[in-house]
Amino acid sequence: MIILGIDPGYAIVGWGVVSYDNYKFKPLGYGALTTPADMPFENRLLEIHSGLEQIIEKYNPQVMAIEKLYFGTNHTTAIDVAQARGVTVLAAAKAGLKIYEYTPMQVKQAVTGYGKAEKKQMMEMTKRLLGLQAVPKPDDTADALAMAICHGHCSGSRLRELYAAK
Amino acid sequence: MIILGIDPGYAIVGWGVVSYDNYKFKPLGYGALTTPADMPFENRLLEIHSGLEQIIEKYNPQVMAIEKLYFGTNHTTAIDVAQARGVTVLAAAKAGLKIYEYTPMQVKQAVTGYGKAEKKQMMEMTKRLLGLQAVPKPDDTADALAMAICHGHCSGSRLRELYAAK
Repeated sequence: MIILGIDPGYAIVGWGVVSYDNYKFKPLGYGALTTPADMPFENRLLEIHSGLEQIIEKYNPQVMAIEKLYFGTNHTTAIDVAQARGVTVLAAAKAGLKIYEYTPMQVKQAVTGYGKAEKKQMMEMTKRLLGLQAVPKPDDTADALAMAICHGHCSGSRLRELYAAK
Repeated sequence: MIILGIDPGYAIVGWGVVSYDNYKFKPLGYGALTTPADMPFENRLLEIHSGLEQIIEKYNPQVMAIEKLYFGTNHTTAIDVAQARGVTVLAAAKAGLKIYEYTPMQVKQAVTGYGKAEKKQMMEMTKRLLGLQAVPKPDDTADALAMAICHGHCSGSRLRELYAAK
């Protein structure tokens, strides 16, 4: 299974493509799409959408795992993050990927075994699980990889549950 | 000038295409894109996006006028409306339309001359300005047409200001 993990945003979209087979993760590619603050917002949406299309075409993932949005204190930012998330999900839906959402707490739980883990601990575990030399930068990229790991673990657990039930 | 007015949403996207020349409005087409509640959200985004693409292809508008989102009390709905607005704006940006945002108050001001006008008054003025026999249904469609009228008036005012300055 090839998983595209996404940390949604409009200034930075973190992305990470990870294969997950036989309970082992392998990073295939990762990075961050960035759009300049002085670009008209609709053009930022265009850039994000076409950037995602290129990533999907290159790595051909079967699923997208993406953070479920909730509201922090900054509502104006949240609206724009949600708009950008819309065009991100659209790119995946157009290409026929299945889409799964996880909360930050689910990701922490899946990656570190503890839903309230510190960010540093999360980064360290992500690095270790993927066999990387260093924690990827920016944080958005590391978060996207952690999101992909979360989906691998969760889908693996579901499979194990299915087998256990038989 | 051909204006595509939009009342953004994910269950219902109101749309109205209006021509505006010599200070006169003419309705070219209007309606509502709807998506069923039991459809996966990513597929609703797909439907909205491709529906908008078809409308833009058919009427070839130069500009999109769309409601600026703000937060009401229902934050969960707001996130999904914002995601749907993202794919709506994307369809316009892809086709090279210029995008303008207006607040509900600006629309009321432009259509009725009073920023706190009642909804009924808005609908009545929209009908009259477009020479329609009845107020279009659903309300989302009437709101989208009002949005297009707002852009016509506002761009007209800007032109008048430019001429006055010469």
